[in-house]
Amino acid sequence: MKKMVSLGLKHVDERLWVLDQTRLPHQELWISGTTPTEMVEIIQRLAIRGAPLIGVAAALVLARFAEDGAAAADWLDAAQRLRAARPTAVNLMSAVDRMIRVRSGGADLVGEAEAIFDEDVALCEAMAEHGSALIQDGDSILTHCNTGGLATAGIGTALGVIRRAHEQGKRLHVYVDETRPLFQGARLTAWELQKLGIPYTLICDNMAASLMGQGKVSRIFVGADRIARNGDAANKIGTYSLAVQAAYHRIPFYVVAPRTTLDEKCATGKDIPIEERAPDEVRGGHSPKFAPVYNPAFDVTPRTLITELILDSGLMKNVKT
Amino acid sequence: MKKMVSLGLKHVDERLWVLDQTRLPHQELWISGTTPTEMVEIIQRLAIRGAPLIGVAAALVLARFAEDGAAAADWLDAAQRLRAARPTAVNLMSAVDRMIRVRSGGADLVGEAEAIFDEDVALCEAMAEHGSALIQDGDSILTHCNTGGLATAGIGTALGVIRRAHEQGKRLHVYVDETRPLFQGARLTAWELQKLGIPYTLICDNMAASLMGQGKVSRIFVGADRIARNGDAANKIGTYSLAVQAAYHRIPFYVVAPRTTLDEKCATGKDIPIEERAPDEVRGGHSPKFAPVYNPAFDVTPRTLITELILDSGLMKNVKT
Repeated sequence: MKKMVSLGLKHVDERLWVLDQTRLPHQELWISGTTPTEMVEIIQRLAIRGAPLIGVAAALVLARFAEDGAAAADWLDAAQRLRAARPTAVNLMSAVDRMIRVRSGGADLVGEAEAIFDEDVALCEAMAEHGSALIQDGDSILTHCNTGGLATAGIGTALGVIRRAHEQGKRLHVYVDETRPLFQGARLTAWELQKLGIPYTLICDNMAASLMGQGKVSRIFVGADRIARNGDAANKIGTYSLAVQAAYHRIPFYVVAPRTTLDEKCATGKDIPIEERAPDEVRGGHSPKFAPVYNPAFDVTPRTLITELILDSGLMKNVKT
Repeated sequence: MKKMVSLGLKHVDERLWVLDQTRLPHQELWISGTTPTEMVEIIQRLAIRGAPLIGVAAALVLARFAEDGAAAADWLDAAQRLRAARPTAVNLMSAVDRMIRVRSGGADLVGEAEAIFDEDVALCEAMAEHGSALIQDGDSILTHCNTGGLATAGIGTALGVIRRAHEQGKRLHVYVDETRPLFQGARLTAWELQKLGIPYTLICDNMAASLMGQGKVSRIFVGADRIARNGDAANKIGTYSLAVQAAYHRIPFYVVAPRTTLDEKCATGKDIPIEERAPDEVRGGHSPKFAPVYNPAFDVTPRTLITELILDSGLMKNVKT
């Protein structure tokens, strides 16, 4: 398989490496993700995350596994384990299913994985092109979680749009939701924006509404982990909260996602499975040791609260706006 | 001065003690707050907090200081330093002003401080009586920050209402916002509810809207740090966010506060000074070291979003609801 390098995933000298996102921003540590067993573990503990990127990673590791001579039964078992590693982001399932189809058709797994990587880069470019046209010089943009180079093989979804507008010379300020419980905004988005030289301010999730009330947010861009047929979008927990606040303050609310995030099999958001994660992510050492916790990793924003869906194929306006 | 004991503050054997709330829930450590200098430091680092309680603490320490023979100039200087220790909660200023008035009138400082303590206990009882009447058997209640025995000399404001309803035998479930950045919900409210045996679930602040969208929240009770003449209420950051979400989901939103939280000098919420605290409270060791941060400790909820103000004197309905 050819050499492929993105901000958080690389294939070099027939090995796969993952930038351990749980160590960022303090340490840039590349860990091995060459075998399916390694990659499942890495995906589950969020050392690699981002709906598009975990799909790409699963495809690469399956091609790598085949090249390394996996027996048919082992390969299929690995594909199923990867497919089930996390339940909400559909990109993971669709990438694995694509690899399974290619294999049963007897076609080239390595070529397919390389295509999935390259396509993801191109999808990011297309979203950035469509989305950045919506951004005005002087905009103050709010974003949630991480949707940049660490979440895709390319420049990102929502954060890719923001980056492209910055590259176009538009003056921007980005408010970054820290994104509890795992701080993907505070740890990863702040790190990316700092590297890109884009001015930003870190806030707690519960401060976003106050900024909106003060007129300090002109647009909101977020990503998605799965979009149902009717346009309802599952994304990192806290997204629905922002969408409600945006509607109340009449601030445009955009969801940015590639075609790999669309799930034709889900009629509405109610059909999207929502991953619940361990209570200790919320307890975090500061609450009473056995405090009962509710820890959904995602929520669903109804299509009616999304001003525009920004897809690689273009913009889909909300018919109600 | 007589012996006075509350959950987080006590006067015993002519010394004042504060339960260090920064150590909770893991350690119950009483620290000395006998001198004004100690108390100012303790208030500023939030070892004691809660709008009503810091007012009571300031009154007690000023009486203690007088009993310990402070010179007039030193006493007045101490009063001014206490008054300025934190800017948003008006209870602190009004308690100190009351002590200054009593002193200049030549009246009994010790008696006045004792009265302030006892009154705060009684105000809590009155709010609990009025507020608990609004709670139905089987309610699922959301609350933010800490408004219980650790925030007042009595049973609390919002949490006192919830506690009283529980004591009346109503079956309740409480959702506790963790309350970033300092986790007063996760650390203090969870600790109080556990001690009281009231069933609760801890959530991140950004999960509240999702619960409301799922129909899992029947009422929201919060406290206040200062209420303007028009009924706008400043409270812990994140309160405005909840009020917007409550309005969107048509969930009753109640602010519970004693008369000592009303500020006749503020016409509207715009006149309430909002404390901004250190960036490291938000950075918390996980974000890039010098990440730019916005860290307001409070936000203002307009009266129009408050279904009822629950005061010690009774309920004030929102004329618009």
